[in-house]
Amino acid sequence: MRVVNEVKPEGMSLHPLAAAAAPAPEILCIFGTGDLGRSLGQRLLQSGYRVIYGSRRPHSCGPLPEGAQVMSHAAAAQSARLIFICVHREHYEFLETLAPHLDGKVLVDLSNNLKKDLYPEANAVYLQSLVPGAAVVKGLNTLSAWALQNGLLAGKQVHLCGNSPEAKQVVAEMATKMGLTVLDRGTLAAARELEDFPLRLFPEWRLPLCVAIGLMAFFYFYLLIRDVIYAYVEKGQNVSFRMIMALANKVFPIVSLVMLSLCYLPGSIAAIFQLYRGTKYRRFPDWLDRWMLCRKQMGLVALGLAFLHAICTVIVPLRYTVQHKFISRLVDEMKSNKTTPLPLNNTDAWASDSFFALGILGFFLYVLLGLTSLPSVGGSISWREFRFIQSKLGCLTLLLCTAHGYIYGWNKLIMPSTYKWYTPPGYMLCLIVPSVVLVLKALLLLPCVDRTLTRIRQGWERTEPRGEMVVTNVIYDN
Amino acid sequence: MRVVNEVKPEGMSLHPLAAAAAPAPEILCIFGTGDLGRSLGQRLLQSGYRVIYGSRRPHSCGPLPEGAQVMSHAAAAQSARLIFICVHREHYEFLETLAPHLDGKVLVDLSNNLKKDLYPEANAVYLQSLVPGAAVVKGLNTLSAWALQNGLLAGKQVHLCGNSPEAKQVVAEMATKMGLTVLDRGTLAAARELEDFPLRLFPEWRLPLCVAIGLMAFFYFYLLIRDVIYAYVEKGQNVSFRMIMALANKVFPIVSLVMLSLCYLPGSIAAIFQLYRGTKYRRFPDWLDRWMLCRKQMGLVALGLAFLHAICTVIVPLRYTVQHKFISRLVDEMKSNKTTPLPLNNTDAWASDSFFALGILGFFLYVLLGLTSLPSVGGSISWREFRFIQSKLGCLTLLLCTAHGYIYGWNKLIMPSTYKWYTPPGYMLCLIVPSVVLVLKALLLLPCVDRTLTRIRQGWERTEPRGEMVVTNVIYDN
Amino acid sequence: MRVVNEVKPEGMSLHPLAAAAAPAPEILCIFGTGDLGRSLGQRLLQSGYRVIYGSRRPHSCGPLPEGAQVMSHAAAAQSARLIFICVHREHYEFLETLAPHLDGKVLVDLSNNLKKDLYPEANAVYLQSLVPGAAVVKGLNTLSAWALQNGLLAGKQVHLCGNSPEAKQVVAEMATKMGLTVLDRGTLAAARELEDFPLRLFPEWRLPLCVAIGLMAFFYFYLLIRDVIYAYVEKGQNVSFRMIMALANKVFPIVSLVMLSLCYLPGSIAAIFQLYRGTKYRRFPDWLDRWMLCRKQMGLVALGLAFLHAICTVIVPLRYTVQHKFISRLVDEMKSNKTTPLPLNNTDAWASDSFFALGILGFFLYVLLGLTSLPSVGGSISWREFRFIQSKLGCLTLLLCTAHGYIYGWNKLIMPSTYKWYTPPGYMLCLIVPSVVLVLKALLLLPCVDRTLTRIRQGWERTEPRGEMVVTNVIYDN
Repeated sequence: MRVVNEVKPEGMSLHPLAAAAAPAPEILCIFGTGDLGRSLGQRLLQSGYRVIYGSRRPHSCGPLPEGAQVMSHAAAAQSARLIFICVHREHYEFLETLAPHLDGKVLVDLSNNLKKDLYPEANAVYLQSLVPGAAVVKGLNTLSAWALQNGLLAGKQVHLCGNSPEAKQVVAEMATKMGLTVLDRGTLAAARELEDFPLRLFPEWRLPLCVAIGLMAFFYFYLLIRDVIYAYVEKGQNVSFRMIMALANKVFPIVSLVMLSLCYLPGSIAAIFQLYRGTKYRRFPDWLDRWMLCRKQMGLVALGLAFLHAICTVIVPLRYTVQHKFISRLVDEMKSNKTTPLPLNNTDAWASDSFFALGILGFFLYVLLGLTSLPSVGGSISWREFRFIQSKLGCLTLLLCTAHGYIYGWNKLIMPSTYKWYTPPGYMLCLIVPSVVLVLKALLLLPCVDRTLTRIRQGWERTEPRGEMVVTNVIYDN
Repeated sequence: MRVVNEVKPEGMSLHPLAAAAAPAPEILCIFGTGDLGRSLGQRLLQSGYRVIYGSRRPHSCGPLPEGAQVMSHAAAAQSARLIFICVHREHYEFLETLAPHLDGKVLVDLSNNLKKDLYPEANAVYLQSLVPGAAVVKGLNTLSAWALQNGLLAGKQVHLCGNSPEAKQVVAEMATKMGLTVLDRGTLAAARELEDFPLRLFPEWRLPLCVAIGLMAFFYFYLLIRDVIYAYVEKGQNVSFRMIMALANKVFPIVSLVMLSLCYLPGSIAAIFQLYRGTKYRRFPDWLDRWMLCRKQMGLVALGLAFLHAICTVIVPLRYTVQHKFISRLVDEMKSNKTTPLPLNNTDAWASDSFFALGILGFFLYVLLGLTSLPSVGGSISWREFRFIQSKLGCLTLLLCTAHGYIYGWNKLIMPSTYKWYTPPGYMLCLIVPSVVLVLKALLLLPCVDRTLTRIRQGWERTEPRGEMVVTNVIYDN
Repeated sequence: MRVVNEVKPEGMSLHPLAAAAAPAPEILCIFGTGDLGRSLGQRLLQSGYRVIYGSRRPHSCGPLPEGAQVMSHAAAAQSARLIFICVHREHYEFLETLAPHLDGKVLVDLSNNLKKDLYPEANAVYLQSLVPGAAVVKGLNTLSAWALQNGLLAGKQVHLCGNSPEAKQVVAEMATKMGLTVLDRGTLAAARELEDFPLRLFPEWRLPLCVAIGLMAFFYFYLLIRDVIYAYVEKGQNVSFRMIMALANKVFPIVSLVMLSLCYLPGSIAAIFQLYRGTKYRRFPDWLDRWMLCRKQMGLVALGLAFLHAICTVIVPLRYTVQHKFISRLVDEMKSNKTTPLPLNNTDAWASDSFFALGILGFFLYVLLGLTSLPSVGGSISWREFRFIQSKLGCLTLLLCTAHGYIYGWNKLIMPSTYKWYTPPGYMLCLIVPSVVLVLKALLLLPCVDRTLTRIRQGWERTEPRGEMVVTNVIYDN
């Protein structure tokens, strides 16, 4: 720290700021006085802008936010540089007649459609064709009137696209002032994608959910036959009540484990592709790319099922049927007049406790994996940390959960009663995929394989070495 | 991919950048050498600024961050364009005498008050009146010295307000460089609100928490009378231990279910208002607006209670009183010398398992709803997805939890012993509101009602159709 | 709302925007056609930029994203102002020969090293020395090719540093358009830190994890001796199965409670330092500062252990050994031919239920604390709210959990059988630290102590009052 009493007045050369006492807020214009238009205007007024509505009938357009003005479309357009078009696409024609007034203006197209592919071209492209002299920016169409009205914008991300970088910049600055995060998506060619965004309903979740539902349906019916129908046909017992909790608590863990291993299978397959081809410079097949891209969602579905399995398990002692079985067993034991104390089977004790310990640890790591996939957590850790958690901890989770499954059935493998109607029990079926994945992982970790794979991932090619120098991040981490 | 070897040198017309070898960092000035001033200076130095402190006694102002300079107020003010005022409001007078040196400068007022409404006008407004030639910007007052010192700023949102857009822009750029997200709140009129922000303590949680606590107190005493006092008065039993876990595990689910249904009731009420009025262009009563705005918090309180209910439930078999009751029942059963095996009641088995299955599924969806209300998750999904989860999945959750409640009491409805002292049991009371909400929802989904409502929400009015064209988002989604 | 039909055309004075019909996208240049270069180019093309690759062998550099061009290094460099260096540091020499073409350009150094301290100076500093006429900006090196390819950038934070503010501004704008949040880290002096960032692996978690693992190992072996070895040596029983679940479910809560109290101990120690010194203007010892900075991680580790304890506890009734013990006890009870009904011990009932109620409430608050430490939740609450939760609710959590521990052993204190081999049981040991912390907290809340401490934290000093005026935030909140 230096103490200085004199400094050359560097700051003095700066031009003096506008006198703060007389603020002259920027004027923004909104066409359309519907919900969205009104909410947007209210929000802009709160951010210190002056807002002028353009309306066909300025004198009878219903309630507008306090402080806003309303004029004819032409007059409103003249007053501002930035014009928000909060009007349905069907009514865009009137903008064509206004075109002379809109020359050099920035038009923000906020419109959405009720369905995909309703029109041959995107709304914003259509608008640009009507008003070629203006700079159309598509964006903000994901904001809802409700969120605008109630100041729920903080941290929301909006996408923008448009042909004029300057126009996009103007809109981006305005959006940033409203607390939004802006993502530039390039030219108007992206407008259709932006317009489809509000219509989408979890597209990246479809495949994982379909796989999960398919697997659950298969295992449910498989177990229904083994556990309920078999008992009815062969022994005449009615154990239909098992159809609810007992079967669910078998299906959940089975599908959860399979889904978890399906998260780690594509990484191994990709590695095998690379080893076989001897290069990383050839694209993977499309199905593998798609599979890789939905690993996060697959993992989260698996976590959800593991969560359900955990609750179903801890609720077990409360169920009537379980208590009934326990009491029956006790009464039987008393009747048979055994001598006290019952012998404690040490192997059973170890197996039971290991079984639960593996399950608990596996579930704990599962939850940890899920937490790091939260956007705010994942965004604050480094790439290496993310890889460590998703790859190393993920494989450990798979290992623990697979071991949990193996211990469950360790003493039932050779009992003939296990194979009702010659079918293997569900937990055996579900252990196949995880075991394969773990074996593949282990093989890929063999020194000779690992060395080749690392070289390939650093750009080496088996056929001819590439001379180009590259910064390589291992893309397809396992 | 085109391979091009020659391109016209478009980039050459750009003016060459300042020689990078001789960086001339921007100078910022800080008035006040307290905790906040020092921490802010340290942080600014880390971001590459040059920092000059203004102090009354530049030679004895205590430890300052390494690399910072200290001068008299006047000298410091001259050296920079941006001056941070990290001084208590009580000491602002000295700035009046400095006013000539502050002309055209940007003053950032970081001050907070210890209480609300301590002064007639906001600190920033007072500062502006003292130094009319400067541009005062209120903001950054939510940052703590602790967060500044330890680099915990990433992703924090700060609000700014001020009369000069240029001044705000300068401050916003500086804040963005420090990793903060900036929200422009308009003119200095918002300064008071910004100054009150650090004093607020969960204002939006008050109403939901009050409702929850009120409901919990009511149901607790109601059940206390029925479960503990009744037993003492009528049968002379001391079951006071029930006051802890047994009552809590009845109150939690009851209040949770009521709170959840209170989240979905205002949507239905709003729809009825719209149907009755035949228009959506009239404001809802204030109480309804306030209710709507705290639905998220209500839902989260309900989730918290559901979570407590879940833990209390799974802990049940461990409780001494429960084990004691179980053993007593067993011993009784043995004494009465029943013939083995005890018959399994199939209806009871189905009821018990359905009861738990509904509860588990309901809780699962509850948690899902809670997760999507996390800012980082909610911010990354589209409006339609958010509505799908909060509206469709929310109603399904309510339906499952209500069914869970109905099954709980299905066989106790007609037993006279249920109505101690002619009072209905708690779970019956708590099913009233959810049932009403579900019936209302079902009525609003009737085709004739739904069609009218959709038309109203798209802008149609019963009395006279509106000619104005509007982009309509359904604001009051259910 | 005023209806105005005429307004003076203020907006007309604005310069007309570039004709939107003919977009002229900005050109960016990328040196290096490896994974990172290709993914970055693809992403930039999507954002509407024109991308030109610089390559040693433009005609044989492998697959590049569609729409990109490739040229010689010199030609590519001339075409753009911004050049991304996606090349390993070992290959930087070729840039020296290109230096004349790079004058006045902005070079973004994205390189990383495989290890720390591999080179005497940071890569970016080395690059700057090779090309002194260019403005080197270090940054974006935390982005992975995988994230770039798949559009997973939203909300990610990137750090930038460089000697030229203008160059940083150019890069920051480009990064903002890609949806990244930019944090300015000052001059190239920070480059090394930025380059080490992708190599770090949870550095702030190391200390808390080491403490936790150390404590767990100590308590595990301590309890192993008391619970397993003692039984074997003194009674000849083989209870080795206890080594899994039984010991784990003792170690988890013990270490969790100790870790939680270690979160709150440094705050008290800091207060004592301040009271003793009579000033807050002297730095705390380094160990205290480091301890304070890892409180959040300590708390989260404690939460993780509490979570494990909760699951282990609810799984208890399912364990074979527990069921065996229960049945043995029942059979014994029956054999001894007691008269029904068994008497219910009211004190035991209260103790058992209070024990569980405290544990459940404590765990609930624990989870609440954990949720507010999520970046997205913590970022949206005010400083006072954060302090309220972390300090007030945190202490309440500690109090509840400590009480939970006391009740656990309330009736075992005076039993000689508790002190096997003269050692106190684990839960007694673990209650020491929390009790000390709670007593310290209580002492610091005494009016006379609290008043002095508050004055010290507001800037008062015991020896001589400081005249400097300060805005004080209480930094070391407890």
